[in-house]
Amino acid sequence: MSIIHSPKGLEGVTAVNSSICYIDGDRGVLAYRGIDIHDLAAHASFEECCYLLWFGRLPNRAELGQLARKLVRERKLDAAIISLLRQAPKNALPMDVLRTVVSALSFYDPEEKMNDAEANLHKAVRLTSQIAYVVAAYDRIRKGKPLVEPDPALSHAANFLYQLNGKVPGDTAERALDIALVLHADHELNASTFAARVVAATLSDMHSAVTAAIGALKGPLHGGANEAVFRVLEAVDSSGSDPVAYVKGILARNRKIPGFGHRVYRTEDPRATHLRQMSRELGNSSGVPKWFEMSRRIEDYVVSDRKLNANVDFYSASTYHILGIDVDLFTPLFAVSRISGWTAHVMEQLRDNRLIRPRAEYQGPIYPQKYVPIEQR
Amino acid sequence: MSIIHSPKGLEGVTAVNSSICYIDGDRGVLAYRGIDIHDLAAHASFEECCYLLWFGRLPNRAELGQLARKLVRERKLDAAIISLLRQAPKNALPMDVLRTVVSALSFYDPEEKMNDAEANLHKAVRLTSQIAYVVAAYDRIRKGKPLVEPDPALSHAANFLYQLNGKVPGDTAERALDIALVLHADHELNASTFAARVVAATLSDMHSAVTAAIGALKGPLHGGANEAVFRVLEAVDSSGSDPVAYVKGILARNRKIPGFGHRVYRTEDPRATHLRQMSRELGNSSGVPKWFEMSRRIEDYVVSDRKLNANVDFYSASTYHILGIDVDLFTPLFAVSRISGWTAHVMEQLRDNRLIRPRAEYQGPIYPQKYVPIEQR
Repeated sequence: MSIIHSPKGLEGVTAVNSSICYIDGDRGVLAYRGIDIHDLAAHASFEECCYLLWFGRLPNRAELGQLARKLVRERKLDAAIISLLRQAPKNALPMDVLRTVVSALSFYDPEEKMNDAEANLHKAVRLTSQIAYVVAAYDRIRKGKPLVEPDPALSHAANFLYQLNGKVPGDTAERALDIALVLHADHELNASTFAARVVAATLSDMHSAVTAAIGALKGPLHGGANEAVFRVLEAVDSSGSDPVAYVKGILARNRKIPGFGHRVYRTEDPRATHLRQMSRELGNSSGVPKWFEMSRRIEDYVVSDRKLNANVDFYSASTYHILGIDVDLFTPLFAVSRISGWTAHVMEQLRDNRLIRPRAEYQGPIYPQKYVPIEQR
Repeated sequence: MSIIHSPKGLEGVTAVNSSICYIDGDRGVLAYRGIDIHDLAAHASFEECCYLLWFGRLPNRAELGQLARKLVRERKLDAAIISLLRQAPKNALPMDVLRTVVSALSFYDPEEKMNDAEANLHKAVRLTSQIAYVVAAYDRIRKGKPLVEPDPALSHAANFLYQLNGKVPGDTAERALDIALVLHADHELNASTFAARVVAATLSDMHSAVTAAIGALKGPLHGGANEAVFRVLEAVDSSGSDPVAYVKGILARNRKIPGFGHRVYRTEDPRATHLRQMSRELGNSSGVPKWFEMSRRIEDYVVSDRKLNANVDFYSASTYHILGIDVDLFTPLFAVSRISGWTAHVMEQLRDNRLIRPRAEYQGPIYPQKYVPIEQR
């Protein structure tokens, strides 16, 4: 059998066929099912985007209404899940809690032992509603606040903010989060989605795949980067430093500035365009423009001096902060959106499945090494 | 950037460099750190094998004693973990429980927020002891039996059987399980190990990587196959059919016989040789040779008629059954062993890390598709 020696990290290797997400990294294009992300950010709701990812086309009004109602009906958690959230130690990392709770959701899933297309579509809907609920409920619980029951009249984005903050968000906040959810919904074979597909390809189940994806998303080279961006902004703010001077200091220690550069894009990340705009608008409407302004100055410097473009994480940080979301929930919030893409990819994987099992390039002691008895070692 | 279009499932593509496991599928060779699996199965204990995988060489007596003592010291679970095991619904799948509990172990890990080499080595030791404890404790709890405290005088294999069955195993049973643990400890970039490395490569943490691996191992195309083998043996036994006639019936319905064939080996899986021997010996010593005999007849037929060789799963099934292990614990038991390889691979990945992020071959609607307003759909 001939072996293809791939570059490290499988860069530039296609691992699966997919019709979900189109990326042209050289031209800065991102599209779900062929539809440009700029059109989706301008016009589509997160629910519409879920439909597009799961069914492969845009819904008509009746289809969208039906999916939205299903998502509303799945806004519930077993009492044992709430109890598990209450039992998690107060200093646990939110992504560890989310990973554990999503894994435990399998215990109470009515279709846990089924892995067919219909059951997996139900699980996609269910997990999309449940993950949003879990993130909001966890934040309430750790702050000692009473849980907020979901409001069936609210959209997915508005209901999340309502269950998190206890008050119905204004139109600007709702739309800002809705756009953020659309922008983060899918990104082809990013590491978490790839992990989900590797797991699903063993014919394991949806909860196993999504649990794996959450574990991957936690990493600072992946979803954890949006949290790291805000830690920088916070440090700049609390130190009173000039943002550019602060960033130069980081670079002088040979460390990276989070939120810049991307494995796939050679241009600006098309998602950054919208998040920059949202960060600006929310800064203005909230009367606290400093996070946007600080971000803008850092971006100007890094783009011109380091030739690195802002990615999806950079302006999500200031956007989420102004929406009143704690910094350690930024990555869980990424999961609240990306669950739509993860589940779409798992369903696609299973429609034409093959075990994903590459080889390693062996570089260890030459075979055969002698087994030396222990008394002679 | 040039794109390498890989075959489906990354067959024949090397995804990482590794010095852990050497496989020559054409010659039927498996070696850990260059040492042939046949030598290890004949001479090494599971603890010795852990040392070999984690440190890259065989230990001397002092080093082996030190590691064995560390493993003994980590035979403990936080009370909250026991409580979580008690709360899992009685009909939950054991692999779902294991995945959830291992994820929750992160809450109580004293080094959860550290991802350096030293912390990860501690986690490797800790998780190896904890996973064995969890599997045994879970089985006791679901059967309504009292938990068995670990015995520091016993080896890893013997202590597992002791905590599972409540009595110290005989020498044959201890050695049989010990060999099974050695044989299952690592197998290069199998799907669960690959999932663990994909997760670790985001610089997420050991618990996230191992949780992902457990999810992948659950799949019937991976670790779940040993359970499927025994379901066949059970069905043959309870139906009173001739084993070969039964297997012909499965094949006539175009279904696969679990436990045969392998992505990598063109010869017999070298692990099958030892498991066949163990299955025979345990059958004879226990006075219940029927599971071995049934397996042998199925193997003879499938090898001669279908030209497929037995893999690691085929004789593990009868072996584990004679050791008194419930069929739905076969895959968790695989994890009890493979945790040693998973953690070795995570540590290796982090020593020279790069994000594992392949591309997908896009086959969806041609970009750009028009965003049609909802009222026109």
